[in-house]
Amino acid sequence: MAIELFNNGKHQCLMFNDLVDDSMGDAVQANQFLIVDNGNGALLDPGGNMTYNGLLMEMHNYFPPKRLAYILASHADPDIIASVNKWMIHSDCKVMISKLWTRFVPHFCSIGNSAGRVDGIPDEGMNLPLGQTVVKAIPAHFMHSEGCFQFYDPVSKILFSGDMGVSLVPHEAIETPVEDFKSHIQFMEGFHRRYMISNKVCRYWVNMVRTMDVEMLVPQHGRIFRGKKMVNEFLNWIETLPCGVDLMTQENYKVPN
Amino acid sequence: MAIELFNNGKHQCLMFNDLVDDSMGDAVQANQFLIVDNGNGALLDPGGNMTYNGLLMEMHNYFPPKRLAYILASHADPDIIASVNKWMIHSDCKVMISKLWTRFVPHFCSIGNSAGRVDGIPDEGMNLPLGQTVVKAIPAHFMHSEGCFQFYDPVSKILFSGDMGVSLVPHEAIETPVEDFKSHIQFMEGFHRRYMISNKVCRYWVNMVRTMDVEMLVPQHGRIFRGKKMVNEFLNWIETLPCGVDLMTQENYKVPN
Repeated sequence: MAIELFNNGKHQCLMFNDLVDDSMGDAVQANQFLIVDNGNGALLDPGGNMTYNGLLMEMHNYFPPKRLAYILASHADPDIIASVNKWMIHSDCKVMISKLWTRFVPHFCSIGNSAGRVDGIPDEGMNLPLGQTVVKAIPAHFMHSEGCFQFYDPVSKILFSGDMGVSLVPHEAIETPVEDFKSHIQFMEGFHRRYMISNKVCRYWVNMVRTMDVEMLVPQHGRIFRGKKMVNEFLNWIETLPCGVDLMTQENYKVPN
Repeated sequence: MAIELFNNGKHQCLMFNDLVDDSMGDAVQANQFLIVDNGNGALLDPGGNMTYNGLLMEMHNYFPPKRLAYILASHADPDIIASVNKWMIHSDCKVMISKLWTRFVPHFCSIGNSAGRVDGIPDEGMNLPLGQTVVKAIPAHFMHSEGCFQFYDPVSKILFSGDMGVSLVPHEAIETPVEDFKSHIQFMEGFHRRYMISNKVCRYWVNMVRTMDVEMLVPQHGRIFRGKKMVNEFLNWIETLPCGVDLMTQENYKVPN
């Protein structure tokens, strides 16, 4: 069942949270997203091969998958777009991804299937027209991927934040937003310390997000942050967290005996 | 045609450089590698869906693919292992990858296909037994991936360096090793400045590699570095290169108008 994040009758944001079979512990839970504006659809971070069939079937309840205008990819990891070959066959969509990854995406695909259909987002981001609105591609480089974008929907005021704000929890837990920030930190901290690249770039990102009107921060794994108060709690936390290369020393780079 | 990097009759290292159709400019050229020791085989960074058929056919000339012991993955990008589902079906191999990515690899796969077959390499690296020798997994975290390994073969003294030392050149150019370091920098510099994460970790890596006996540095894209003199030229260059987050400022993190 999809979770409806926003719906004003003409504009809808949906989240699919239960398509990865995480019961065995083998695969990390992941959220996929659909934005529909006046009958035009964009799929965000549709996931890998294991979610393709489930997402295709679920989407049919809300939007005809073959009419997708875009696949918007925050970066090029397998849980983000390993299914891209199948989506390209099923629809005429364009794939939008950082220009750093446009020449890597064809490696997911059968020969020729991606030709002319993968467009690079420049480092500074861009506005992507969708129906009567735009989706804004917001720079999030090195959080964690070198070429990384988040997607901001100005109608719903949702920031789809990719790996920023991720928590590692079972999919059932995702049906409720974060309620108590302090007790939620334990599900985020290990991931952010190791997968986010450095505190310096996190601070730049926090400064940028503080200039935006964000009602909901929605990561690609785990629970969402709803309301400005909760979004701010997250910004305050990540702003001071040492992470990634900040924590590396020569001890981490030694030839194993 | 495979390029033979090393062969002493019992131990062989092969490089496949021409399996990506890079003539259209859509997909980045990539090298794949096979190490065979006394009839035991490991495939390194086998690549994406577009190289699978070609690599399978080429390998048959040297080693039966279904008898592969390992797929060794430097990290989880599509040009590294998007084909992993097919290799798992074709052989009984184990997949070895940083423990940071073991729960992401199943997203490349059909449901259940990867269960129990993806093993995590701990951050400090490890020795992987292969035939009568070992392949050493050497820490290369944040170069570029957060959990990243290079593979060192102590018999041939080759360091398979993943994205470190990459050059973006047509596949024909790869048949000859780098001959003039200075004139080769133009094919490496843009990539290393943007995809390597920071000069700090590059320096830790250089310090570690200087303690090793490396006769050949063999990256996953582009031309190889043969001989200690050329390997040292590369180490001296990368040691002082500002890159990744070193070069980011608040200007890189602004909401697009």
